[in-house]
Amino acid sequence: MNNDLKIANSVTAEPILKIAQKLGIPENVLIPYGKDIAKVQLSYLKKLEETRQPGRLILVTAINPTPAGEGKTTVSIGLADALSRRGQKTCLALREPSLGPVFGIKGGATGGGYAQAIPMEDINLHFTGDIYAVTTANNLLCAMIDNHIYHGNELRIDVKNITFKRCMDMNDRALRNIICGLGERTDGVPRQDGFDISAASEIMAVLCLASDSDDLRRRLDRITVAYNLDGQPVFAKDLGAGGAMSVILKEAIKPNLVQTLEHTPVFMHGGPFANIAHGCNSIIATKMANHLADYTVTEAGFGADLGAEKFLDIKCRAADLWPDAVVLVATVRALKYHGGIPKDQLNVENIEAVKKGISNLRRHLNTLKNTYGLPVVVALNHFTTDTQAELDEVLSQLEAMGTKAALCDVWAKGGEGALELADAVTASILNHSSPSHPYDYAEPIIQKITAIATRVYGAERVDFSKVAKQKIAMYEDQGYANLPVCIAKTQYSFSDDPKKLGAPEGFKMDVRDVTLSSGAGFIVVLCGTIMRMPGLPKKPAAVNITLDENGDTVGLF
Amino acid sequence: MNNDLKIANSVTAEPILKIAQKLGIPENVLIPYGKDIAKVQLSYLKKLEETRQPGRLILVTAINPTPAGEGKTTVSIGLADALSRRGQKTCLALREPSLGPVFGIKGGATGGGYAQAIPMEDINLHFTGDIYAVTTANNLLCAMIDNHIYHGNELRIDVKNITFKRCMDMNDRALRNIICGLGERTDGVPRQDGFDISAASEIMAVLCLASDSDDLRRRLDRITVAYNLDGQPVFAKDLGAGGAMSVILKEAIKPNLVQTLEHTPVFMHGGPFANIAHGCNSIIATKMANHLADYTVTEAGFGADLGAEKFLDIKCRAADLWPDAVVLVATVRALKYHGGIPKDQLNVENIEAVKKGISNLRRHLNTLKNTYGLPVVVALNHFTTDTQAELDEVLSQLEAMGTKAALCDVWAKGGEGALELADAVTASILNHSSPSHPYDYAEPIIQKITAIATRVYGAERVDFSKVAKQKIAMYEDQGYANLPVCIAKTQYSFSDDPKKLGAPEGFKMDVRDVTLSSGAGFIVVLCGTIMRMPGLPKKPAAVNITLDENGDTVGLF
Repeated sequence: MNNDLKIANSVTAEPILKIAQKLGIPENVLIPYGKDIAKVQLSYLKKLEETRQPGRLILVTAINPTPAGEGKTTVSIGLADALSRRGQKTCLALREPSLGPVFGIKGGATGGGYAQAIPMEDINLHFTGDIYAVTTANNLLCAMIDNHIYHGNELRIDVKNITFKRCMDMNDRALRNIICGLGERTDGVPRQDGFDISAASEIMAVLCLASDSDDLRRRLDRITVAYNLDGQPVFAKDLGAGGAMSVILKEAIKPNLVQTLEHTPVFMHGGPFANIAHGCNSIIATKMANHLADYTVTEAGFGADLGAEKFLDIKCRAADLWPDAVVLVATVRALKYHGGIPKDQLNVENIEAVKKGISNLRRHLNTLKNTYGLPVVVALNHFTTDTQAELDEVLSQLEAMGTKAALCDVWAKGGEGALELADAVTASILNHSSPSHPYDYAEPIIQKITAIATRVYGAERVDFSKVAKQKIAMYEDQGYANLPVCIAKTQYSFSDDPKKLGAPEGFKMDVRDVTLSSGAGFIVVLCGTIMRMPGLPKKPAAVNITLDENGDTVGLF
Repeated sequence: MNNDLKIANSVTAEPILKIAQKLGIPENVLIPYGKDIAKVQLSYLKKLEETRQPGRLILVTAINPTPAGEGKTTVSIGLADALSRRGQKTCLALREPSLGPVFGIKGGATGGGYAQAIPMEDINLHFTGDIYAVTTANNLLCAMIDNHIYHGNELRIDVKNITFKRCMDMNDRALRNIICGLGERTDGVPRQDGFDISAASEIMAVLCLASDSDDLRRRLDRITVAYNLDGQPVFAKDLGAGGAMSVILKEAIKPNLVQTLEHTPVFMHGGPFANIAHGCNSIIATKMANHLADYTVTEAGFGADLGAEKFLDIKCRAADLWPDAVVLVATVRALKYHGGIPKDQLNVENIEAVKKGISNLRRHLNTLKNTYGLPVVVALNHFTTDTQAELDEVLSQLEAMGTKAALCDVWAKGGEGALELADAVTASILNHSSPSHPYDYAEPIIQKITAIATRVYGAERVDFSKVAKQKIAMYEDQGYANLPVCIAKTQYSFSDDPKKLGAPEGFKMDVRDVTLSSGAGFIVVLCGTIMRMPGLPKKPAAVNITLDENGDTVGLF
């Protein structure tokens, strides 16, 4: 059987210059990284914004996923390829993959089968170094914190209250909790610290929310790194780290251009976590795509409760964007999962489970339509284990609900497998709809959290721990009352309990803690335990990855 | 006054294609990274070795430096530019700079003034990501060690005897000694660990000593990561990490092509430490340069006692290379330093100190000529604070010694300032001299160490600690008796005491410990305390680095 890497390597990429030409990007704003990848100068975005109207923006989101994922990226790529096949000037805006999962279990984030972004191997391994730059900026800031303390601690940083952690683009559980600064007097001051995976670094969120270099610098400067012995915040600016960090990120802020297997242009840029951060590619990439193409397809992490909510309530408001249509990806497997079938039995036909599980889809659909006022098309993403009866069941239920839906088979067929979806999406776009949100930024923080929980998740109420309440009050005192909230909870359920599948009713959410991302500009609301540094499985994917006798990579996927 | 960055930016780089053309490199083996940087396909080296004779190889080394350095890279670049001006087809092979010092105190490693490699900013910041790849391969191996222990420790790794450490390309003293694996049961197994700076990673040494991809893989597999509870070595191969590491390093192993300010081609590739590793750019880069150019100028880290010794005894033997001439860089400042003048008074004229300090130069000269049998030209690198009387003193002493010498002024004049040096060097090359070494690989390890100490450093004897003796015996038992030795000692003195300047006599060396770099293929001999992870100064260079209102980097140097 063909695997993703083999399929990816079976197609000859078009020269990146030619891909750029499709969008009308002049050669002099391109910075080539090899023959198939280029960065685009940032100044070009300003010019585009002044001279070209934005095209149509399509958000691809999903129902609550199974642990294996529902193929959101694959559908996004297939949809864009289908729009290209229909003669539309189309572009994708996607997140760039983290290296951690590549060596762990899940694989990369460049799609799959015949719906992939290429050069798949480069994108999944080092790409243009953006994540390394994020890691370096993050760790320079950390080194400067400890260095400041070591050299006399003029700012009176409380070593027991340093909130900014080191990071690494690696699944390494042993680095979650460390004590650093051990050894001799000259080896620094001992304290507790830990590493997050780089995608969870606030620097990544900052990079993805920055509108330009100046905005990037402002956001970097205002990152809260610690509190001093009087409980007052200490900012990156106080350590003089903002300038050097902005220099480190100077190339990383420029969006990366690649292509799909069918040669549709893709901006792949930035990859923040979708729980403790907002989970979408950079604003810069989305805007550049949107001003170049007639149709831009973009996606947001996890299910619509996390991904679409943050895309719409955080990213769109920061960027003054609004989608023209939403594609909600569902699979028979995930519907059965929500219908109560354990994940090792999802390959067995079960119409009843499909019927039951559709409740999850329905709630997402209603929220997107009613709370956000958006036209939605359901993409039923075909897996080889789906039976015709199961597929028919989903489609007929959707028809009964008056919902536009299309079966798509993008893994096996690429854009060809999403033509019906593409037609449904273009037909669903009427006029630019005006933004509508479940909460206003001006509302008190607790009210904002409650609005999302009740209006998007369907919770009955929200309980706040004592520490969460105290910290919310403190942040409001410090002038952060108007920030949006970024809820970190399980992606498997509307609730904060991964076992509550389908469309749970009458549940309460528990807010355990809140943290401030003052650089990114949101308050992270922690519901349950959130993993910020994954670990490797017993047999990591890494042990199967190698170069074959011809020097070609094998085992990557 | 012009700083290095301003000078670097005042020159328009030639397209990297044109630089490649100068050496006859065909476009189809080039992988562009932006417009001024390219990697060269590795397969091209094999073709060159089969079809072209190597040209002349010139090693640039130095007397024992002052803490500010003597401008070895600057002289190397100036010399190559001068050879180009004389119409010779010339190429440089240099190390790529580490990011750590950029934000710390020392600055980059791309030369200075009018003798620089460009694009200076890119090279000093992220370049082509080689050091990130080294860091990632290193840390994947570490994650796999801890992951193996966490998932049952089938190999019975002794957590108190893990020899392979994590790394980061950052000056961060707080990471020198850590405890990792703290937290819950699912957060790994607690143990002591630490981070080295990435240039000190054995992976970097491996990359630089590998002759091709297969050799790289063999070296990665054979890295000793720990000992098991029976005291037997555990290798990277046992963890199944070699394949994934070789995939991570797949691009990093390809040499990087850049240019000098005068458009002389430069291969800049790899940058291992010059104490606990061998301190030279990759064998692949040196060989590629040597087969393409009539004259290849390369350098080795620190003074000749560390740099040239390892270049000649480790790298040249591994690569079957031998230089045709050696340039020994000296400065009036360093000679005065060796003559007993403290470093804050080196700007004051002092002929007596110059006379006295020349003893350091003389010993290096004698070793290079007599032990290694190489023709040597002294490059007296001009600083603005030198007086004419001081310069005359050095030159007349060298003349009296029958040594070829040339004053050069490369910082201010570029290649124009090294024409006399270039002529002296080309005149000094007679025939290919045959290699000569202070020791044979077949000698016992203690004898090899003693040979270097007595024949290169001028020590009277070497004392070995008990642990050093035990470990040497163990390594010999394990089959490592034939490895070369890589001595880690201070760069400021021939001895292991940085205060013993000039040409100390009758001293003894203390070997505190030895460690095995079985992947790189040498035994590291620790004389004194060796810093493997630098720290930042009280006011790090980072606080002056920023983007100006035009988005240009300032404060980098």
